[in-house]
Amino acid sequence: MSMQLNETHNPDLKSWVVSANTGETDFPIQNLPFAVFRRAGSNEAFRIGVAIGDQIVDLTIVKQAGIFTDITNAAVSHALTASSLNALMDLGNTVSSQLRLALSKALREGATAQGQLVGTLIPQADAEYALPANIGDYTDFYTSVHHATAVGKLFRPDNPLLPNYKWVPIGYHGRSSSIGVSGQEFRRPIGQTMPPTATSPQFGPAKRMDYEAEIGIFVGQGNALGETIDIKQAEQHVFGLCLLNDWSARDVQAWEYQPLGPFLAKNFASTISPWVITLEALAPYRKAWNRDAADPQPLPYLEAEDLRSTGAFDIEIEVLIQTEKMRQAGTPAERLSLSNFSHSYWTVSQLVTHHTVNGCNLRAGDFLGSGTQSGPLPEEAGSLLELTEGGKKPLLLSNGEQRIFIEDGDTIVMRGWAQKAGAARVGFGAVEGRLLPARML
Amino acid sequence: MSMQLNETHNPDLKSWVVSANTGETDFPIQNLPFAVFRRAGSNEAFRIGVAIGDQIVDLTIVKQAGIFTDITNAAVSHALTASSLNALMDLGNTVSSQLRLALSKALREGATAQGQLVGTLIPQADAEYALPANIGDYTDFYTSVHHATAVGKLFRPDNPLLPNYKWVPIGYHGRSSSIGVSGQEFRRPIGQTMPPTATSPQFGPAKRMDYEAEIGIFVGQGNALGETIDIKQAEQHVFGLCLLNDWSARDVQAWEYQPLGPFLAKNFASTISPWVITLEALAPYRKAWNRDAADPQPLPYLEAEDLRSTGAFDIEIEVLIQTEKMRQAGTPAERLSLSNFSHSYWTVSQLVTHHTVNGCNLRAGDFLGSGTQSGPLPEEAGSLLELTEGGKKPLLLSNGEQRIFIEDGDTIVMRGWAQKAGAARVGFGAVEGRLLPARML
Repeated sequence: MSMQLNETHNPDLKSWVVSANTGETDFPIQNLPFAVFRRAGSNEAFRIGVAIGDQIVDLTIVKQAGIFTDITNAAVSHALTASSLNALMDLGNTVSSQLRLALSKALREGATAQGQLVGTLIPQADAEYALPANIGDYTDFYTSVHHATAVGKLFRPDNPLLPNYKWVPIGYHGRSSSIGVSGQEFRRPIGQTMPPTATSPQFGPAKRMDYEAEIGIFVGQGNALGETIDIKQAEQHVFGLCLLNDWSARDVQAWEYQPLGPFLAKNFASTISPWVITLEALAPYRKAWNRDAADPQPLPYLEAEDLRSTGAFDIEIEVLIQTEKMRQAGTPAERLSLSNFSHSYWTVSQLVTHHTVNGCNLRAGDFLGSGTQSGPLPEEAGSLLELTEGGKKPLLLSNGEQRIFIEDGDTIVMRGWAQKAGAARVGFGAVEGRLLPARML
Repeated sequence: MSMQLNETHNPDLKSWVVSANTGETDFPIQNLPFAVFRRAGSNEAFRIGVAIGDQIVDLTIVKQAGIFTDITNAAVSHALTASSLNALMDLGNTVSSQLRLALSKALREGATAQGQLVGTLIPQADAEYALPANIGDYTDFYTSVHHATAVGKLFRPDNPLLPNYKWVPIGYHGRSSSIGVSGQEFRRPIGQTMPPTATSPQFGPAKRMDYEAEIGIFVGQGNALGETIDIKQAEQHVFGLCLLNDWSARDVQAWEYQPLGPFLAKNFASTISPWVITLEALAPYRKAWNRDAADPQPLPYLEAEDLRSTGAFDIEIEVLIQTEKMRQAGTPAERLSLSNFSHSYWTVSQLVTHHTVNGCNLRAGDFLGSGTQSGPLPEEAGSLLELTEGGKKPLLLSNGEQRIFIEDGDTIVMRGWAQKAGAARVGFGAVEGRLLPARML
């Protein structure tokens, strides 16, 4: 497990990039997340960058500066200059950890590299992002027992939490092609729905548009088909985490999902944040896993001594809305909920091991969603479906507007961060997405 | 729709490749399917080939021979020399139709190209295959109402065919990473199951291993995110068909599939045949769609005048087994069932249009499974689950062995073909896969 603290986590470290030292930035020198970026509106090639304060360090330039000389071989050299993170992910976490240390040293106050790099930084405000990796397969899990119970009550009042839930990390395959990076705008999907009083389905724009606040997990080094990833090694196969909004059309979902699961209710768009936070950066924020005494012990393949004490991550997940009206009035986005990834019933390592226990192969850049991260309290719900109790209880916004589900023009923003006394804040940045009106029928 | 007959379908056409003229070959000059191949055991680059009789025409060589001069531009030239069919698929069916005509002319008896090509053919017996395309996303449908009813009875005796079935082409996302080409061998998956009398799940090798006989559908030119593919244009976005064995672990499936669908029960392996048969080659084998008078009319977005008369394909699908004992005795594979793709409740074009009605983007090389193609009769069932009535009625093989589910060492073979008087046979070749023992626990 990647839970050892080292010199890169020292909360006293400061960077010569002064915006990294505010204590409030998501990207202090203790974070150093990866993204794929270029100057906004340019025809430049997308390339790999690392966030520091409000700036981006361009890895193609860092490489030329010789900072990675000690750790660069042909494979690393190729990975650093690629237009996606797949090759770097495939090299494994030892390499990304070496890069992290080299970057930490080069970006510290007093580093000799400052002279070479200071003129090459690109402000994040001037950048645009691509997906961090070419995502081969996307799997969405269902790890919040609070979400599973709340949604189960709405879809199956007599049978909210199914008997397999506390044994099997429930997951299903999602759609890779429609995953976009923060800033994604997409049309309200059209499809079939079956209103409660109807005798045949209706066709038209979905009416119950929702978000799902999730943590996204990028697979690092994969496994061969037929091999499994042992629970003790699982985190060595995880490159890092980001934020994921798994948009959902609840009325489409209710009509289509039996017996094979959600399909068109989800695959029109999913939006992720551009910065991938390594597990190493999150080492100060490990927590005990979330189990009650009455919960069954996991089967042995999903159990490891360390997981009990450090299997979870203490990551706050905030959801905000900016309606079209707010946008036009210049009003900032308003909080809908605040939850925490540590409420997850299953740990990241359990997801990886379960996914491969049957020999299924994961590839570098594959993407896992945690499932909606609802907490135990109603205001910690990670979807409107839960916050409005299935659409029955409208939310009143501070400008007087009401929301049951997402309306055309609404922007949903999610932010994530880990913060505590004695450690540097490790932020995720944000993922934003906006619902456009349905295409004309 | 690709249902116009043209000179390439003329049943009287003969090839100078004499093995194409037997009347029994899967690959007469009227078929001309595409695959990605190289000489078996070599380090050659994989490249695109077209089957003719028992030979392969190497498209990189055909291109040099100038046969495609009239239709070759930079994009076509790039596509013809690629190591997968994605670029060719992306060019659309007008281009693949032009290639088909040029190949038909070059391979006919008396063609002047014979002299250039005759020495360059590669026997299929000497070839090995890669997947025809890099599959971005894989979606599996559930189009046989007979399969859905039979399996529904086993999983939900009180509720076999769900109310959405005859309205919604039910589909779910599958796993791309574990799709392999014919010849794939894979280990018996390990996982959680909940036997009927147990109070907590068991962990170990799956016991109820099954196959599913399906038609695979390769997407040609895709659609942009947010756009939909109209039912009238849908077949222009389908490059061609192949055979698919969607291996399934029924005991894993029964325990994990609620509420989000099959996951580890399917994603350990799926095997496809190497040759992709274009819809154009199948034009003589169009049939009326499969609807009873009592079935609801499809919603308008899934309906087109032509579909009623020609929406289906008359393709026989045969499943055979060769047990380890048969293999060692040199006994050929033995038939388990024979079904037909025309029993499908939903047409290929309906699957494509439904998939994109919400704006979901399909990409060239994406792959759709038809779902298990069971016919109305018990012996037409496309899985052991159905043939053995849920594992209750063993099958007696001619060498005295019995089978309820697949046993270690068994090879499952599927063959497909279309054949009738007045048209040339259009065969699919075969897809074979073999179950190996589970890894040691």
